Amino acid sequence: MSERLVVIGGDATGMSAASQARRLKGQEELEIVAFERGRFTSYSACGIPYWVGGDVDGPDGLIARSPEEHRKRGIDLRTGTEVTEIDTEGRRVRARSVDSGEEYWTSYDHLVIATGARPIRPQLPGIDAPGVHGVQTLGDGETLLASLRATAGLRAVVVGAGYIGVEMAEALIRKGYDVTMVNRAGQPMSTLDPDMGHLVGDAMTGMGITMVNDAAVTELLTGDDGRVRAVRTEAAEYPADVVVLGIGVRPETSLAGAAGLPLGPAGGLLTDLAMRVRGHEEIYAGGDCVEVLDIMSGSTRHIALGTHANKHGQIIGTNVGGGYATFPGVVGTAVSKVCDLEIGRTGLREKDAEAAGLQYVTVTIESTSRAGYYPGAATMTVKMLAERRTGRLLGTQIVGREGAGKRVDVAAVALTAGMTVERMTTLDLGYAPPFSPVWDPVLVAARKAVRAVAADHT
Amino acid sequence: MSERLVVIGGDATGMSAASQARRLKGQEELEIVAFERGRFTSYSACGIPYWVGGDVDGPDGLIARSPEEHRKRGIDLRTGTEVTEIDTEGRRVRARSVDSGEEYWTSYDHLVIATGARPIRPQLPGIDAPGVHGVQTLGDGETLLASLRATAGLRAVVVGAGYIGVEMAEALIRKGYDVTMVNRAGQPMSTLDPDMGHLVGDAMTGMGITMVNDAAVTELLTGDDGRVRAVRTEAAEYPADVVVLGIGVRPETSLAGAAGLPLGPAGGLLTDLAMRVRGHEEIYAGGDCVEVLDIMSGSTRHIALGTHANKHGQIIGTNVGGGYATFPGVVGTAVSKVCDLEIGRTGLREKDAEAAGLQYVTVTIESTSRAGYYPGAATMTVKMLAERRTGRLLGTQIVGREGAGKRVDVAAVALTAGMTVERMTTLDLGYAPPFSPVWDPVLVAARKAVRAVAADHT
Repeated sequence: MSERLVVIGGDATGMSAASQARRLKGQEELEIVAFERGRFTSYSACGIPYWVGGDVDGPDGLIARSPEEHRKRGIDLRTGTEVTEIDTEGRRVRARSVDSGEEYWTSYDHLVIATGARPIRPQLPGIDAPGVHGVQTLGDGETLLASLRATAGLRAVVVGAGYIGVEMAEALIRKGYDVTMVNRAGQPMSTLDPDMGHLVGDAMTGMGITMVNDAAVTELLTGDDGRVRAVRTEAAEYPADVVVLGIGVRPETSLAGAAGLPLGPAGGLLTDLAMRVRGHEEIYAGGDCVEVLDIMSGSTRHIALGTHANKHGQIIGTNVGGGYATFPGVVGTAVSKVCDLEIGRTGLREKDAEAAGLQYVTVTIESTSRAGYYPGAATMTVKMLAERRTGRLLGTQIVGREGAGKRVDVAAVALTAGMTVERMTTLDLGYAPPFSPVWDPVLVAARKAVRAVAADHT
Repeated sequence: MSERLVVIGGDATGMSAASQARRLKGQEELEIVAFERGRFTSYSACGIPYWVGGDVDGPDGLIARSPEEHRKRGIDLRTGTEVTEIDTEGRRVRARSVDSGEEYWTSYDHLVIATGARPIRPQLPGIDAPGVHGVQTLGDGETLLASLRATAGLRAVVVGAGYIGVEMAEALIRKGYDVTMVNRAGQPMSTLDPDMGHLVGDAMTGMGITMVNDAAVTELLTGDDGRVRAVRTEAAEYPADVVVLGIGVRPETSLAGAAGLPLGPAGGLLTDLAMRVRGHEEIYAGGDCVEVLDIMSGSTRHIALGTHANKHGQIIGTNVGGGYATFPGVVGTAVSKVCDLEIGRTGLREKDAEAAGLQYVTVTIESTSRAGYYPGAATMTVKMLAERRTGRLLGTQIVGREGAGKRVDVAAVALTAGMTVERMTTLDLGYAPPFSPVWDPVLVAARKAVRAVAADHT
C-alpha cells in the first residue's frame, strides 16, 4: 500500500523535498501532494532585486520549475490552495482553495512544513499605503514594478539596511532613482561588526546613496491620492515616491505554532539533524521557517537563505524517500553586493562570540584582490576573529570590490573544519597574479591573527 | 656574540627569510649576509607574462623590495655575487663577484639555500639562437621584450602548454601575435586530467591559438641572420619570428648536490617540516629548489610557485629568528588563466591517485558561476575525485570563465581538512545571485560524487 507525503509550501524546500522523494520512490510507493497558496513554485526570491533593477527578466526567469513541470513528474501540486490547520494527532492537514473557499482534509504519512518567512512590517501609520512595498514573493516584485511605473517621481526610500535593503538600493540606483536608506543602527549591514558596517556605509555614501543611520521610522506620510509621499523619523522627513521595506523577515510558523509544534527563540521550528521536527518523526521542516544549528555558537538561529532552503529540501526528500541525509548546521556565511561593492561574512561577529561565552582576539588588514601590480587589483578589508589561547578561527568579514565576496568561502570551510588561524597561514590557496597576491588576503589576516593570539597569551 | 645568517638567493624565499629573521632579531644578535647572482631582489617572476603582454609595467613594477630597501633594513645584501661552493663541514660558503671574479669564503651559523629553479632547455639544435626565449627571471623578460621589438614578424611559437606556456600565449595574443602552441602531450595543461585538459585546448583553439598536440620539437631552424625562423617537429615545421619555451623548470640544486645535501626524486632538496635540510639542523631550504610534502599522496613533489616560496621564507625566518613555524605541506593548488578562460586545480589527478595506491571514483558536472538567470553567468566544468568507500575528497579540477579559478580554494581547504564529499554537500558557502547559483558548482560536484561513491559501494 502506498504512503502519502504532504508538502506545505511550493518553493525551494517544499518542492526540492517533493522532487527528491519522487526520484527515490515511484508513484506506486509514494503519493505526493503539495499545497501552495500562490501560483508560483520553486522560484528564486533572492533574484527579485535584480528583476526590479532590470538585470533579470521576471517573473518567469526566476522560476526554476513551474507547477506544470512538477505535475509532469508525478507530484500532485495544488496551487492557490492554503493549508489552514495541521492535525498532528490525526496526521492530516486542512486545505482551503483561495478562490472558492472550499475546504477539505488530507491525511499524511509524512509531512513537510516549508512555509517560509514573512517580511517584518512594523505597525506604523501609513504602512499599508500604496507605494510601500515589501520584496518577499514574486507577487511583491510584480506589485513593486507596477508601482514604480505608476509614479513619475524618482525619490526612493529604503527602510532597513540589511542585505535585502542594500540589494534594493542597487536596483533602484540602476533605475535612476535617488536613494535614501533609513536605518535604525549606526551603520548598514548589522550582519557585520560595526567597524566593517561603517566601511559599507562609507562606500554607499560614495555611490550617492543618502545614508540615514540611528533613525527609526515613526510614520509613513501619504498624499491626497493616498499614495506614500514621505517617510518620517523622529528627527526628520524624507520625501518618497516609493518606499521599500527591507527590515528583515520572520519565520512563518503560525500554522506550526497553532499545532503545538516546537518553536525556538527566533520563532522558527526546531528540528533534529535529519530535519525532523523535534518530537515528531513523521513531520519534517526546512528553509526559512526553521531555526538552524549555528555550529560556531552551539545555538539555533533563523537564517532565511535560498541555499539553506534547497539543501534542507534535498535532505528531507532523501529521508522521506528512504535514504539517509543530515544537515549538520551552518557557520553563517553570507555574501551580498551593492553596485561594485562586495560584502562577505562567515562565522561569529564580536557580539556573537560574547553571547556564546567565547573570548577572542580580532585583527583587520587591508590587501588586494589580485597581485598589487596587476590591472584591476582592488583593495579589500578583511577582519578576523580567533579564539583566545586556542587560536581557532571564529569568524571572518570581508568588504571590498570584485573578488572580495566569495573569498569568504575559504574561511567558511576553515570554520567548518575547526581550523586554527596558525594552520590557515599555510593553506594552499590558488595563486597567480590575476587571481590573488602571493599571500591571499585571507592568509594575510590569518598571519596577523596568529600574532594577536600569541601577544594575548603572554 | 652575534651569529651570522647566510642566505643564498635574493628572491622570494631568501629575502622573506632574511626579512623575517631581521624582524625577530636585531643586528647586535644576528648578522645577515645575502648573496644574489643577479641585480634584482624579491621580484614576482609570475608577473613576467603580464609584463610581456603589456598589462603590467616592468621590471620595477614586479619588484616587491629593492636591494636598497633590504640594505636599509639591516641586511648585508651582495648582488652580482654568486655562491660557488657550500662547505657544510666548515660551515662556510665561497662567494664570487660576477663582475670582478674575486672570490672569498664567508662562514655561517645558519644557512638558507634559496637558489630557485632553472627552466628546462632541451639540448636541441638551434636552442640557443636569438629569438628563442625562456621566461624565468626579470632579465629573461627584458631580453624577450627586446627580441619582440627586434622583429617585425608576428608569428610566435610557444613550446610547452603548462601554465607558463598558456600565460605566455595570452601575452602574445594581446600583443597581436599569431600564436602556435607545440606540446608533447595530447592536450594542454598536464596538471589536469586529459579530459579537463581537452576542454582547455578546445577553448584555446576557440581563441584562435593553433594547438599542436602530441608533437615533440626536434629542431629550431635559423635564418641567414642566425635568428630563429621556425620550429620543427617530426611531422611538420612551424614558422616562428619568436619562440618562447614554457617546458617547465627543475630545482636549481647543483650547489646543494655538490655539497652532498639530500635531494629527492625530482632533484629538489629534501627538508623537514621546519624547512631544515634533512640531517642538517643549521641549513634551511625553501622555494623552487626544494621538494614539498604532498599531503594527499604522502610523497614529495617539486612545485615552483611564488606563494609557496614566500611561505617557506616566512617560516625559515621565524625559525632562524628563534621562533617556531612549520610548513605542513601542500595539496597541489594552482590557478591560471588564458584570456577569459580560468583553470583551477587542487589535489590528485587520476594518475596521481593511482600512483599513490588510492582507489577513487570521478564525476564531472557543468554549472554556472552565478545564478543561471543573472547576467554574466558563465558555464564551468567541475571534475571531482573521491576515494572509494571512504568518500574522502581527493582532488578537484575546474575549467570555466570568470569565477572558475579561485573556486578551487574551497576544495583546497576541504582537502586540507580531510573532508568527505558527503560533508562537503552541506558546506555553508556564500550565496547570492551575482556570486553563485543556489547550489555552488563545487557542491553540485560533491553531490554527484556522493552518489558515485554510493553506487560503487554496492
